[in-house]
Amino acid sequence: MTVTLDDIRAAQMTIAGAVMRTPFLPAPKLSALTGADIRVKYENMQVTNAFKERGAVVKLTSLAPAERARGVIAMSAGNHAQAVAYHAARLRIPATIVMPETTPFVKVAATRGYGARVVLVGETLSEAQAEAETIAARESLTFVHPYDDEDVIRGQGTVAIEMLEDEPDLDTIVVPVGGGGLISGVATAAKALQPRIEVIGVETVHYPSMWSALRGETPKCGGNTLAEGIAVKNVGKLTLEIVRRLVDDIVLVKEAEIERAVNAYLTLQKAMAEGAGAAGLAALLAAPARFRGRKVGLILAGGNIDARILASIMVRELAREERIVAVRITIPDRPGVLGVITTTIGTLGGNILEVSHHRLFLKVPAKGASVDVTLETRDAAHANEIIAGLEAKGFDVARLGEPSEELR
Amino acid sequence: MTVTLDDIRAAQMTIAGAVMRTPFLPAPKLSALTGADIRVKYENMQVTNAFKERGAVVKLTSLAPAERARGVIAMSAGNHAQAVAYHAARLRIPATIVMPETTPFVKVAATRGYGARVVLVGETLSEAQAEAETIAARESLTFVHPYDDEDVIRGQGTVAIEMLEDEPDLDTIVVPVGGGGLISGVATAAKALQPRIEVIGVETVHYPSMWSALRGETPKCGGNTLAEGIAVKNVGKLTLEIVRRLVDDIVLVKEAEIERAVNAYLTLQKAMAEGAGAAGLAALLAAPARFRGRKVGLILAGGNIDARILASIMVRELAREERIVAVRITIPDRPGVLGVITTTIGTLGGNILEVSHHRLFLKVPAKGASVDVTLETRDAAHANEIIAGLEAKGFDVARLGEPSEELR
Repeated sequence: MTVTLDDIRAAQMTIAGAVMRTPFLPAPKLSALTGADIRVKYENMQVTNAFKERGAVVKLTSLAPAERARGVIAMSAGNHAQAVAYHAARLRIPATIVMPETTPFVKVAATRGYGARVVLVGETLSEAQAEAETIAARESLTFVHPYDDEDVIRGQGTVAIEMLEDEPDLDTIVVPVGGGGLISGVATAAKALQPRIEVIGVETVHYPSMWSALRGETPKCGGNTLAEGIAVKNVGKLTLEIVRRLVDDIVLVKEAEIERAVNAYLTLQKAMAEGAGAAGLAALLAAPARFRGRKVGLILAGGNIDARILASIMVRELAREERIVAVRITIPDRPGVLGVITTTIGTLGGNILEVSHHRLFLKVPAKGASVDVTLETRDAAHANEIIAGLEAKGFDVARLGEPSEELR
Repeated sequence: MTVTLDDIRAAQMTIAGAVMRTPFLPAPKLSALTGADIRVKYENMQVTNAFKERGAVVKLTSLAPAERARGVIAMSAGNHAQAVAYHAARLRIPATIVMPETTPFVKVAATRGYGARVVLVGETLSEAQAEAETIAARESLTFVHPYDDEDVIRGQGTVAIEMLEDEPDLDTIVVPVGGGGLISGVATAAKALQPRIEVIGVETVHYPSMWSALRGETPKCGGNTLAEGIAVKNVGKLTLEIVRRLVDDIVLVKEAEIERAVNAYLTLQKAMAEGAGAAGLAALLAAPARFRGRKVGLILAGGNIDARILASIMVRELAREERIVAVRITIPDRPGVLGVITTTIGTLGGNILEVSHHRLFLKVPAKGASVDVTLETRDAAHANEIIAGLEAKGFDVARLGEPSEELR
């Protein structure tokens, strides 16, 4: 048994009217940034802001009446939870969602908001998974797997049919890979419609599960990632078989590339992407030469990113561009000195965001002080000009907050 | 002379292929938030991220060969500048953009990036305007007005034709109003296609120019606004006439409503809106009862908002929802006390973002200290629970950073 183009065409009929046919549009600024001719599929515009609804709807509508009546269960702390909860409610199928106790409250509330029973249990996803299986068996609920399920793969494949209907001459589709459900469906549809198209998967270097599975290696997974939506330790059995057969390559991206991609979607394309959702763009930013001149379809797979983290990414990008700069200045501790510093910065066009004094550092003379100034500049050259201006007034100025090598 | 539906239909042919036909899509979460049935027209997806390209293209393509050869001039620190610069370059028409000296460097660079000659002059828009007129006369350049021009109004009206082609049964269109170019075109097209449709304009309360002009009053303009794209002191002559004749109402929105609308577009709809671009949604947030149950078309007119300001809006919204809370605690200045505080907060599930000590406040006993703790909570109830937990340990806890009345 496997998934075919005809299955995915049937899935497209199933989801019509229930799942948004999202726009697939040229992104001229991202194209200019990378040198590829980019079109973006905006799956972040779905009601639950991710592509997961497609597979969930196909699975839910495939259930027999008795199964529907008993209800479904899913384990997820993320987009799959909301997709199942939302569409189960719409189809009047009772839904239970099992989430680890550590799941952010906003996600728990959103899932409950769709009317699902939420069971919070365990510290980790695997503890929650075990509990979900126990509940499923006890209550005879149908388990809705997030990726290793033919109906789910069929649903996710509809993304590629829509993309190729809108742009039949794509050269390449770049797809984020977690458990492999999306890329399995996309590769099945795309390669059947357009055998010469290239399908490339993207994983975070911290969770190279598919990359390792294809090589017969045990993946080394772990660590914090912005792309928690694709931080999956075990790929599917079905998905691995399809990926091995149809996918051209899997590439790994670093955290800094994912962060840059989230920021580029926001500032250049005015669209909010979660880390996993931006992984495709991250792959282009990591290796632009590989995609230069090609007509590339990116799937902005999801937009559910924490507001505080997104705000911090935006400010960090300003720091990376040296549009926000922090400096430490050692000064004699007497009236008027801060006036000279701030006037110098202001005259040169810098905007001061924050000032703090330190008098206890032993590096500083007893009658001295150390002042940290955070300021906003036009760009790196302007930042250098302001620092030179302060040095010309006789101050000793040191930069603060240079990024570590990995995050540069 | 005036603008007709046929003119706008002709404009639609003119811009085809040069300006994106942007998506117009249901926004279920914004609908749930406001009680209206909302569709959003994503003009922030244009190359220069605002609707202004439509009018600019119609104007530029209307020029005679000799006028094209001599070139065009525009005065703008915002979206109009980039729209004229981008499309003039595309059409090989020399463009001069006059901007005040205070224009942020990013906007100057973007405009230059499209190949325009940028003249930075004057402290204010009116000084820049005077200089633009001088240069236009001296060099025989065609002046491209941002709104008071029939070609520009024709171009902006294409937004409404597209909206009503996609959704013929809209009840209401809500439109941000600066000089009135967009609403004049939209009202002309919409009322001709659908006489019973309601067209409502939105201004910031700090720049009620059209609202005042309709009442024959001199507007009281001034003050900082997030919606600088509609902070216009003088509406157009043409636009005032059209608005008086066709627009049903102009409503005024406060800064806090604009800020909430920018945040709602971002967190609920995953789309980036500038203040002026979000004014339509702000009007619905300000008076939801007025729009409840109606099928409302919103124009997300532009997405060019400074990254630092957007980051700050997102964090301020978390503070408003009490998901970020700052408290000041007076403590005896001895070892172990901060440990009790931070452990209490941690045990109750609060995440500490920042700690700072103050010893110089005279309110604090000489052997005491004041500690400010900024922490992240799940919601307002959780914040209260943590504060009660600290009080139960005997600490005196005061909230910091309550918003002023206007910004609440």
